[in-house]
Amino acid sequence: MPSDLWCLIFLSVGAYFVTCRLIAKFRDVFVRANLFGIDLCKSTGAEVPEAVGVLCGCVYLVCMFLFIPARFGQDFIQQKENFPHHELVEYITALLGVTCILLLGFADDVLDVPWRVKLLLPAIAALPILLVYYATFDTTFVMVPKPLHPVLGQSLDLGWGYYLYMGMVVVFSTNAINILAGINGLECGQSVVIAISVLIFNSVEVFMGEVSTHPHMFSIHLLLPFIATSAALLRYNWYPAQVFVGDTFCYFSGMLFATVGILGHFSKTLLLFFIPQVINFVYSVPQVFRFVPCPRHRLPRYNKVTNNIEMSTVRFKESDLKFLGRASVSILESLGLLAVTRNLGENKDFIECNNFTLVNLVLKFFGPMHEQSTTIIILLIQLLCSCVAFAIRYPLARLFYDV
Amino acid sequence: MPSDLWCLIFLSVGAYFVTCRLIAKFRDVFVRANLFGIDLCKSTGAEVPEAVGVLCGCVYLVCMFLFIPARFGQDFIQQKENFPHHELVEYITALLGVTCILLLGFADDVLDVPWRVKLLLPAIAALPILLVYYATFDTTFVMVPKPLHPVLGQSLDLGWGYYLYMGMVVVFSTNAINILAGINGLECGQSVVIAISVLIFNSVEVFMGEVSTHPHMFSIHLLLPFIATSAALLRYNWYPAQVFVGDTFCYFSGMLFATVGILGHFSKTLLLFFIPQVINFVYSVPQVFRFVPCPRHRLPRYNKVTNNIEMSTVRFKESDLKFLGRASVSILESLGLLAVTRNLGENKDFIECNNFTLVNLVLKFFGPMHEQSTTIIILLIQLLCSCVAFAIRYPLARLFYDV
Repeated sequence: MPSDLWCLIFLSVGAYFVTCRLIAKFRDVFVRANLFGIDLCKSTGAEVPEAVGVLCGCVYLVCMFLFIPARFGQDFIQQKENFPHHELVEYITALLGVTCILLLGFADDVLDVPWRVKLLLPAIAALPILLVYYATFDTTFVMVPKPLHPVLGQSLDLGWGYYLYMGMVVVFSTNAINILAGINGLECGQSVVIAISVLIFNSVEVFMGEVSTHPHMFSIHLLLPFIATSAALLRYNWYPAQVFVGDTFCYFSGMLFATVGILGHFSKTLLLFFIPQVINFVYSVPQVFRFVPCPRHRLPRYNKVTNNIEMSTVRFKESDLKFLGRASVSILESLGLLAVTRNLGENKDFIECNNFTLVNLVLKFFGPMHEQSTTIIILLIQLLCSCVAFAIRYPLARLFYDV
Repeated sequence: MPSDLWCLIFLSVGAYFVTCRLIAKFRDVFVRANLFGIDLCKSTGAEVPEAVGVLCGCVYLVCMFLFIPARFGQDFIQQKENFPHHELVEYITALLGVTCILLLGFADDVLDVPWRVKLLLPAIAALPILLVYYATFDTTFVMVPKPLHPVLGQSLDLGWGYYLYMGMVVVFSTNAINILAGINGLECGQSVVIAISVLIFNSVEVFMGEVSTHPHMFSIHLLLPFIATSAALLRYNWYPAQVFVGDTFCYFSGMLFATVGILGHFSKTLLLFFIPQVINFVYSVPQVFRFVPCPRHRLPRYNKVTNNIEMSTVRFKESDLKFLGRASVSILESLGLLAVTRNLGENKDFIECNNFTLVNLVLKFFGPMHEQSTTIIILLIQLLCSCVAFAIRYPLARLFYDV
């Protein structure tokens, strides 16, 4: 194993302990600064510090900064002529994107900006990555799957479409983690599972060594300290949560995945590790786009008596729905993916169905259960999907691409 | 003028208007998020949004991101082989440092971290700059003034000392602006004056073209959008202030100056433009290092009747002072730089003197006056010092260095 990797592992272990210490020490500072939330799935009503992901992000950054001399110092001394400038540019640009999203995410947590602005933030943070990509590499070719070779040729130049695609990867991955959320340990847990899956994928690629290993080493370098700092945060965010991670962390982790995917040139494979998030997003569409009424909070309902959480529901007049709303309710209901109760209210013209999130869907299938069990089940689903992703990436990809 | 400079001027003008609009639009959001302060030099007691510098910083970043393709896109197309990678690295590293200090500054404004941590923040943000410098350039030679040639030779390798020096430039310049503060328009005004002075210096160097113009163009590129966004902030921070700039802005502007100084290779000249800040710092030393008691706020005292501001004072027993405290009081008093009243209190053993800041010193010399006049006088001093700086840099430097 290269010596810089040992150095990074050492730094990451340090980062884990530093993050733990900082969280324990600064917890009260967040509450005093009015940055806290009430945990709606508990009966204590305690003030839980919010946006603590910013500490995790800062430690991550310092760790990555300290890694610069270990990673590039040797190159500089040994091969001044052939110094891998483009690798340094990639590395620093990735950090710039991450720092940017931490700033915007934290500003969002503090200032609580409106929804339209929220969608813009990841796009702003993606700017340096896309623009540096444009000013330096500007390769917009993609490989075409074998069955399409006769039509499109071996590769296809997407031009500006490729930049649009990369921008969409960023906006999707940042928001995907942000909307699969609401119960203790979920945001952080899924990020750790995804990060470890991607890390395994990168390691396999490096060991197989069939193609250039550089992009995968790059990804490994970015992921290791992320896993360490997120694990520290998860420790405090696990049931019963002592801190909340905030939009800061969701944006941070989403941005990091998008960055390694784009600059590591495996953005399509990356999306395979986001299967639960894709399912959650597709399932959420009727409420996100307001085909069906969407309450402010969609997290599960807490039952004080049983200390379990149950599906949360939304109640509305079916006659108020437009075509798309009615279609989504009836299709999901017939597929058994939506719990619907009809003929409610005085005039029997109200219906009630569960909110359209993966968390509620899990509670529909498994019944009311403890909050911690719900998190564990969803993380197991995430793990299972990672296995599926590997199955798709390795045996199946050979059918469609020349490897 | 190169076409990319036109593009940047265009972007900067846009940045000015966008910043104005954002400040006007988001002002209330800051107050709602509990980010506000009471202006102690007004009788209204209104809640003034605090830390608004973060908006200015975000617009600055977006502007710099958008400039990347204009600055480097042409180079990439025309000279793929000789693409100036190290310039791109410098550029992105500078932005990384700025983004980092914005994140830390904003976190400081929100969380109100303790003093010891405050001093650490600029050092953290300086890390990427120093480490990238180490991993890529690692030139630690300085030119020796002519009179010292016989002793030290033409140039001197400072080794690690050079990194220490650069770190100190960052810590000094960020804190220097932060402690010359407290009245409307001062933080922002001095930053604009310094930025314009440095910009003129860079332009002169580029036009004279005696040495490599690249570092000075780099500095110009970083300063133009800064002047635009700071001017927009100044408009709202000018008397009577509608917004406060926050530590965010002070750190941001200090970091930016340090960055252009270090990566533009003119960090010694840069310090010449900080003469008022150096005077303020030296004058503050007795209170900053607690030789003399230091109250929590040292800003001038507001007189409701006259609507003027007056020196603020600190009262203590002279017998409580240690040697250094007694020495600083008596030396400053004998130089006419400190207003001291003795024999106060019941036992006539208390003395009272003005707080050790440049703002109070100005009020000592010119007498109580309107807040706006005080700001204008200090900005005029800053302007005068810039003229002195040019006088030192050009005619005098020729005596000591081979130009």
